[in-house]
Amino acid sequence: MMTADHKTGMKKGHGKLYGVGIGPGDPDLMTLKAKAVLEKVEHIITPIKKEGEDSTALKIVGGRVDLSTKNVHKLVFLMEGGRTQFQECGREAGDWIIDILERGEDAAMITLGDVSIFSTYMYLSSYVEDKGFETEIIPGISSFSNAAALAKIPLVLGNEGLAIIPAAKMDRIDVIMDIFENVVIMKAGSVMKAISEKMASRNIPRENATVVSRAGMDGEYIGPIDEEREFNYFTTMIIKR
Amino acid sequence: MMTADHKTGMKKGHGKLYGVGIGPGDPDLMTLKAKAVLEKVEHIITPIKKEGEDSTALKIVGGRVDLSTKNVHKLVFLMEGGRTQFQECGREAGDWIIDILERGEDAAMITLGDVSIFSTYMYLSSYVEDKGFETEIIPGISSFSNAAALAKIPLVLGNEGLAIIPAAKMDRIDVIMDIFENVVIMKAGSVMKAISEKMASRNIPRENATVVSRAGMDGEYIGPIDEEREFNYFTTMIIKR
Repeated sequence: MMTADHKTGMKKGHGKLYGVGIGPGDPDLMTLKAKAVLEKVEHIITPIKKEGEDSTALKIVGGRVDLSTKNVHKLVFLMEGGRTQFQECGREAGDWIIDILERGEDAAMITLGDVSIFSTYMYLSSYVEDKGFETEIIPGISSFSNAAALAKIPLVLGNEGLAIIPAAKMDRIDVIMDIFENVVIMKAGSVMKAISEKMASRNIPRENATVVSRAGMDGEYIGPIDEEREFNYFTTMIIKR
Repeated sequence: MMTADHKTGMKKGHGKLYGVGIGPGDPDLMTLKAKAVLEKVEHIITPIKKEGEDSTALKIVGGRVDLSTKNVHKLVFLMEGGRTQFQECGREAGDWIIDILERGEDAAMITLGDVSIFSTYMYLSSYVEDKGFETEIIPGISSFSNAAALAKIPLVLGNEGLAIIPAAKMDRIDVIMDIFENVVIMKAGSVMKAISEKMASRNIPRENATVVSRAGMDGEYIGPIDEEREFNYFTTMIIKR
């Protein structure tokens, strides 16, 4: 039977939903809290783009958490789209997860990097919370913090600003570079040439751009812009004005 | 005696310097790697602004790492200033640390949050590396990732951009809000009123701003702008356009 806590409005005796950022790839870049939560919950849910897909996130977690005693679920989850689609996806996934929580079991959805950076988990979280269930978010190391650490360069210092943009926002790059001393471009693989030309036109030295691609994976690259090389989705650029 | 490795140029038989991001305050938001490094090194160095000051970072680490067997050093370290001053400070601290590394012992400098976000550690790191010693940076959870997790809101989604600025850059806020869907203002305690007025003038609803202050400390506040309240240095604002 469901009972409501009058103080918090949360349903007692039910499970809790966690959104857990597991960091950029190295299992040791999970937080102590992420590991503890994942060891505690009965259900681990990993979002995938389409049926049958492998889960990179699950491989990372498996490096430090024994998954053999867990209920592991791959859940097809919308990662690109608009607000309406995200909300619809959050509702569907939410109802499925609420079935688990109503049995008094805890569930954690894992996301690469940090939960608040380009992750649609929050739509799911707010839907489940609105239904009266307890939720908690465990932040993770973002891909750009990892890129800066690997390249050994600061992202932002003193009175400077930092712009973080997806490749799709390249059309605003000029005004962004007018204002910001530091620009991170995510998923930069497809716009490498455009960035290189833009830097040349603004007389920014080539060495001011650092490319970090496939960090911690096969084919890792940390270095200057290389137009001869193929860069994929997992490519982050850090540009100093 | 010092010997140089011809392949990497790194000095063999010497200690290594780590820059370790220890996250926003909760000791369990340290990464597994941060904990392992801090357990391994002989020397833990915590930067302080002036002699005799307490170290918040050291308290956080002490929550999960036994410091009784460590050489713990409080080092006066410049946290605000210009490039020339940071380099000068990096050189002085660097020479002091190199004495440790030349004895074959490892040292870790701890920084709150993430090493690449508003931390001057990189100047020290590049000086020590230029002298031929091995260095490594362990990224940490940034205060803004933690703020978003606590407030349960996304920082950036889909094709949006994210601007991260210190309060000092408030003079550019209009053009920043023209371009960016999401703005994080760090050290926002002193500019709360200015932000509130700016939002009103742009017809941005008040509930689009979330204040996270003293997260995980006494007097924690997570909520809307409150102009009656005093907010200090440890205050982050997340604004949705």
